[in-house]
Amino acid sequence: MNEEKHPAVVLLSGGLDSATALAEAKIAGFALHALTVSYGQRHAVEIEAARRVARSMGAVRHVEQVIDLRAFGGSALTSDLEIPKDRPAVMMAAGIPITYVPARNTVFLSLALAWAETLGAFDIFIGVNCVDYSGYPDCRPEYLEAFEAMANLATRAGVEGRGKFRIHAPLIRLSKDQIILRGLELGVDYGLTHSCYDPVPDGRACGRCDSCQIRRAAFERLGRTDPVAYA
Amino acid sequence: MNEEKHPAVVLLSGGLDSATALAEAKIAGFALHALTVSYGQRHAVEIEAARRVARSMGAVRHVEQVIDLRAFGGSALTSDLEIPKDRPAVMMAAGIPITYVPARNTVFLSLALAWAETLGAFDIFIGVNCVDYSGYPDCRPEYLEAFEAMANLATRAGVEGRGKFRIHAPLIRLSKDQIILRGLELGVDYGLTHSCYDPVPDGRACGRCDSCQIRRAAFERLGRTDPVAYA
Repeated sequence: MNEEKHPAVVLLSGGLDSATALAEAKIAGFALHALTVSYGQRHAVEIEAARRVARSMGAVRHVEQVIDLRAFGGSALTSDLEIPKDRPAVMMAAGIPITYVPARNTVFLSLALAWAETLGAFDIFIGVNCVDYSGYPDCRPEYLEAFEAMANLATRAGVEGRGKFRIHAPLIRLSKDQIILRGLELGVDYGLTHSCYDPVPDGRACGRCDSCQIRRAAFERLGRTDPVAYA
Repeated sequence: MNEEKHPAVVLLSGGLDSATALAEAKIAGFALHALTVSYGQRHAVEIEAARRVARSMGAVRHVEQVIDLRAFGGSALTSDLEIPKDRPAVMMAAGIPITYVPARNTVFLSLALAWAETLGAFDIFIGVNCVDYSGYPDCRPEYLEAFEAMANLATRAGVEGRGKFRIHAPLIRLSKDQIILRGLELGVDYGLTHSCYDPVPDGRACGRCDSCQIRRAAFERLGRTDPVAYA
């Protein structure tokens, strides 16, 4: 019955958050168009995870785009800076982390907008949240609202009044614990996802970067087993 | 003395307008960081033009990004739709042309923003104008203002108050004639540029698509010779 569903574009990194956002788009009744953007990051293993997740959720289409943000330099995820390991939670929460990628969500949402307009879709999902990652400016509600306003001026569909673009950020006010609980409720298989900033050569998560630590701590607090393999 | 200049990122397609915008950024005293985005368009010959123009203007750096917007489908410039030829001016001015690429300027400006933030630049130049291309929603001043507002919320630099991003669109209210006159005044060599939507196999401009027609007519009205070779 996918013909009757409205399409939505869902940004899917392959991590825990975006897998949960995809599940939210599915339960909301959209035909899922998953978009994975590879930006020259070290953790290309995420893209494999994105493929698995898209397949498991019954995505109608999964498009992968590659952009070389390394050409611009400037972030631990796109250059050769050392990924911080074993940082205490208080340090992870302080300020903008060096893993911040300049304008990343803006680039991702712009590509999602291009696809959405082509599809005749007005709904874009992104798995950002401002609780565990308060340091990223492009994860805040006021940023997403500004993007939405811009999107409605940027597009033929917006100008011709055929609809109004909406950026859905269903996780934005959830803690990692709440995201995981919600995902489990929606049937997300977190064993398919990948969150690590710095996987070991065989693809397993390092267990020590900020992302791994936040994820593991949340599963522990919930008394659940994280199905992902750690080095 | 480039060390003393503030950097600016300039979107450079290789066409007449963006070459003129680059000249405006140069005369304004910026260290030029030219960004060319290839989006799977047919006129890849534009990229060669962009390289020539960047070199001739003394750009400090020229980065080329490739994005496959064809993966999303939907425009004459990125798929196999027929490029309109020999259209009368009244038709070119009516509505949004089929050569419209969904969210193109948003994708371009987002990449420019990513580079600008990495550089510590706050100035982005784009050669859009809303006189000859009124049909493109993402060429209008209200769109550019919305992008600017979004950019200042999207970025670490914006959030930390280190500066305010500004989208410069120096051509936005100029006609094609005025753009050419200004460019000639600034020393732009229009023989290095390329405007055609559908060049013939040897790379020469077709002379008949909307873009060629608008350009040729402007040079004619000005009584100047268009230095570009037409088929």
